[in-house]
Amino acid sequence: MISTQTLAGELKALLGEDRVLTEPEQLTQRAVDTWPLRLVQQVAGAQPVLPRLVLRPRSTAEVARALAYLSERGVPVVPYGGGSGVTGGAVPTAESVVLDLGAMNQILSLDADNMTVTVQPGVLLADLERWVNERGFITGHYPQSIDVAQVGGLVATFSAGQFSTKYGNIEDMLAGLEAVLPSGEVVRVHCVPRRAVGPDLRHLWIGSEGTLGVITEVTLKLFPKPAERWMQAYAVPSMRQGLAIIQRFMQAGWKPAVVRLIDFIEAARLLQDTMPGEEALLILLSEGPSGCPAVEGAALDAIVRDGGGRPMGERPVELWLERRNDVHEFDQYINMGIIVDTIEVAAPWTRIADIYEQVTTRVRAEVPELVIIMGHSSHSYIQGTNLYFIFGAQPPRDPAEVERVYWSVWERVMAITRECGGTICHHHGIGKLRARWVPEELGSAWPLLRRLKQALDPGGVMNPGTLLPPE
Amino acid sequence: MISTQTLAGELKALLGEDRVLTEPEQLTQRAVDTWPLRLVQQVAGAQPVLPRLVLRPRSTAEVARALAYLSERGVPVVPYGGGSGVTGGAVPTAESVVLDLGAMNQILSLDADNMTVTVQPGVLLADLERWVNERGFITGHYPQSIDVAQVGGLVATFSAGQFSTKYGNIEDMLAGLEAVLPSGEVVRVHCVPRRAVGPDLRHLWIGSEGTLGVITEVTLKLFPKPAERWMQAYAVPSMRQGLAIIQRFMQAGWKPAVVRLIDFIEAARLLQDTMPGEEALLILLSEGPSGCPAVEGAALDAIVRDGGGRPMGERPVELWLERRNDVHEFDQYINMGIIVDTIEVAAPWTRIADIYEQVTTRVRAEVPELVIIMGHSSHSYIQGTNLYFIFGAQPPRDPAEVERVYWSVWERVMAITRECGGTICHHHGIGKLRARWVPEELGSAWPLLRRLKQALDPGGVMNPGTLLPPE
Repeated sequence: MISTQTLAGELKALLGEDRVLTEPEQLTQRAVDTWPLRLVQQVAGAQPVLPRLVLRPRSTAEVARALAYLSERGVPVVPYGGGSGVTGGAVPTAESVVLDLGAMNQILSLDADNMTVTVQPGVLLADLERWVNERGFITGHYPQSIDVAQVGGLVATFSAGQFSTKYGNIEDMLAGLEAVLPSGEVVRVHCVPRRAVGPDLRHLWIGSEGTLGVITEVTLKLFPKPAERWMQAYAVPSMRQGLAIIQRFMQAGWKPAVVRLIDFIEAARLLQDTMPGEEALLILLSEGPSGCPAVEGAALDAIVRDGGGRPMGERPVELWLERRNDVHEFDQYINMGIIVDTIEVAAPWTRIADIYEQVTTRVRAEVPELVIIMGHSSHSYIQGTNLYFIFGAQPPRDPAEVERVYWSVWERVMAITRECGGTICHHHGIGKLRARWVPEELGSAWPLLRRLKQALDPGGVMNPGTLLPPE
Repeated sequence: MISTQTLAGELKALLGEDRVLTEPEQLTQRAVDTWPLRLVQQVAGAQPVLPRLVLRPRSTAEVARALAYLSERGVPVVPYGGGSGVTGGAVPTAESVVLDLGAMNQILSLDADNMTVTVQPGVLLADLERWVNERGFITGHYPQSIDVAQVGGLVATFSAGQFSTKYGNIEDMLAGLEAVLPSGEVVRVHCVPRRAVGPDLRHLWIGSEGTLGVITEVTLKLFPKPAERWMQAYAVPSMRQGLAIIQRFMQAGWKPAVVRLIDFIEAARLLQDTMPGEEALLILLSEGPSGCPAVEGAALDAIVRDGGGRPMGERPVELWLERRNDVHEFDQYINMGIIVDTIEVAAPWTRIADIYEQVTTRVRAEVPELVIIMGHSSHSYIQGTNLYFIFGAQPPRDPAEVERVYWSVWERVMAITRECGGTICHHHGIGKLRARWVPEELGSAWPLLRRLKQALDPGGVMNPGTLLPPE
């Protein structure tokens, strides 16, 4: 393989000096994303694996030139967005070059009449939301990572937002895109309201996690600012009963923007007060054009009360709205060497409560290093919902021990989810973390993903080890 | 190439005598679908091209055995569903074997708690709708072909239904599926509420038109029966003004199930009465859980009146509901040698009225054989809408002349649509009819479709000439 020195020299000649970063601190900055396993291992003394160098292209043409060059030489490429991914999708290997999209951060155009906005991939979602808000629109997409995640990365990792029950997830919002294949070919999927011209090629890129090429432009659909809002919180006797209530109103055809059922442990942290017994907290928020939220709210209220819910007013919803993206505690614990991680899965209605109960009891019983496990459901559909577990575990201060404890939790949650007919991932993506379970998750469809990879990245240079497990 | 006699003998040995049809009338029955070009050419004296034989498998295992055998021998395979496609997607070549899915017509299971239903591909949509209706659900999918189209074909051709503005199109309804690759490998995409495990593999099959393999099982999402309905028709001054009205309420966040703007020529046929001047007819129908349709209806009514709409009561909506799937006139004209065809395209709001006006004026002016051209918009989105043109043309009674006149209309509509930034196909699919325009439509993304085809059907046996133009 080509030496790093030659590589850096040739890439500087190809792209310009200032596009190629080689200083140790620059490499260190992109050596991890927000994968808790690696973060805690570093606290426990592990050295991060550094990439050979970092590229900061500013245009599609530069990305294309870089990819063609790197493919030709068989150098692995790891696309890097905001670094907010929690599954190690952007963690480089020692042989790889990191392609940092952060300098491609321009909002390119607003099509106000057709309600779309076109951006470079490195635009921060929060910046985009503010920008379209000022022009009378919303993106409708509010993941917790809104302040740090970049738009291209959100598409590549199959993002879901906190208001998804009404506005949908990223696959419902992506109107068109441009991407660069490893060969350097630039492909564009032109934005139209709907197209029946063969398989929808946008879907090759949603969830591709940098393994098929690099997304270099994104056109998103926009929504009107909602005219009205209704909100209400309820205490419900248990997660199982709360899930049954949500099932009932979802299957009656209601679609409130926020449907969030929080277990008593997490609710106590949110409210800074404990729920009586093991009551769960149900947060509902409906928004939309004039008249709708009131009608929807009244219907939801009747269904929740009928299911045993006790109204708690609007205050818990307001508290959640204020605190929903605050993750400072996460950083504190990580810095103390405590593993704090999240595991989100989804399943049909008939099995989702089983998953909640089995995970919270079995992991507690079987992993002695576990300090806490709690969770909520936050993305509901007519066919089922997700569960979002948050766990804390205190391993001995040793990278290998961190790894052992980490996988002992993950393996149990993945196994329980699969036993209950769920999917191992609702929206954080696969990264390097979940790749080992992908063949089993996809089952007989696994060869289709292998063939896609082979078709678009025959040299296997794109983000090796992410999404598809190493062979 | 293997002789047809040997082929028939070996397939009978492989699948059973009764699965292999070789009688001329059996071949003739599957020699055309509902592509008007071929139908009118036959009336003008052309002989249909017959396939070598027809297979009628009854199970996935039989489809797998047949495909593995045919791939091995390089025999082209044309999957055939209800034969209701209007773009020639199921029209065989002389070298091909037709794989008729009509005997795989079992409803396999209802999951009432999770609101999904699983069927074999040959189930008629109307049968399925009745079956789920009896159990308290609806499919929400109502294409005009509901009585003749099969579920597998609807997935393979990217179907859209008349109530799509509320319930979505087939891509929003497909929960899971099973398909057989040309190699005979069976792949299943397991149904979960949402999955972020790499690119969504369902999308390889939606719109694949039999070019990548054969869909052998479909799981659809179900919806609750709507509790209430509101409907109202309006006369609006012109198609352009009607489209502006629809844009306004769609972009305010309303989603009535039916949004149908019919031009004065088509409206006169529906109402059996003429609209004053060139007024268009706007049909709106809102349905959903209790309270919603009334609120939505009142808001729509205000917006339509404000835009110059004049209320015409519920009767036109009722008439449309009664007559919407009646296509007997289509058969009558075809049998008289008159071309009656439909062309559906879509575009962003800012260009859609231009397409309507240019198509209706230019085609009328430039194609002397044209008898009538009219149209409607029937599938609206926040970003734009579709147009559905219906034209009649009377060519000389000669297959070559039929072809000349046919393409002279199609070429103009495709060119105008593309000049206006629209897509050449909203929902009828590509078939053999539109394949010639696919490379231009997809532009730089065209190589992606080529690579998908190569990855899943390396031998090129699946439905050659459909979707991808012959090389």
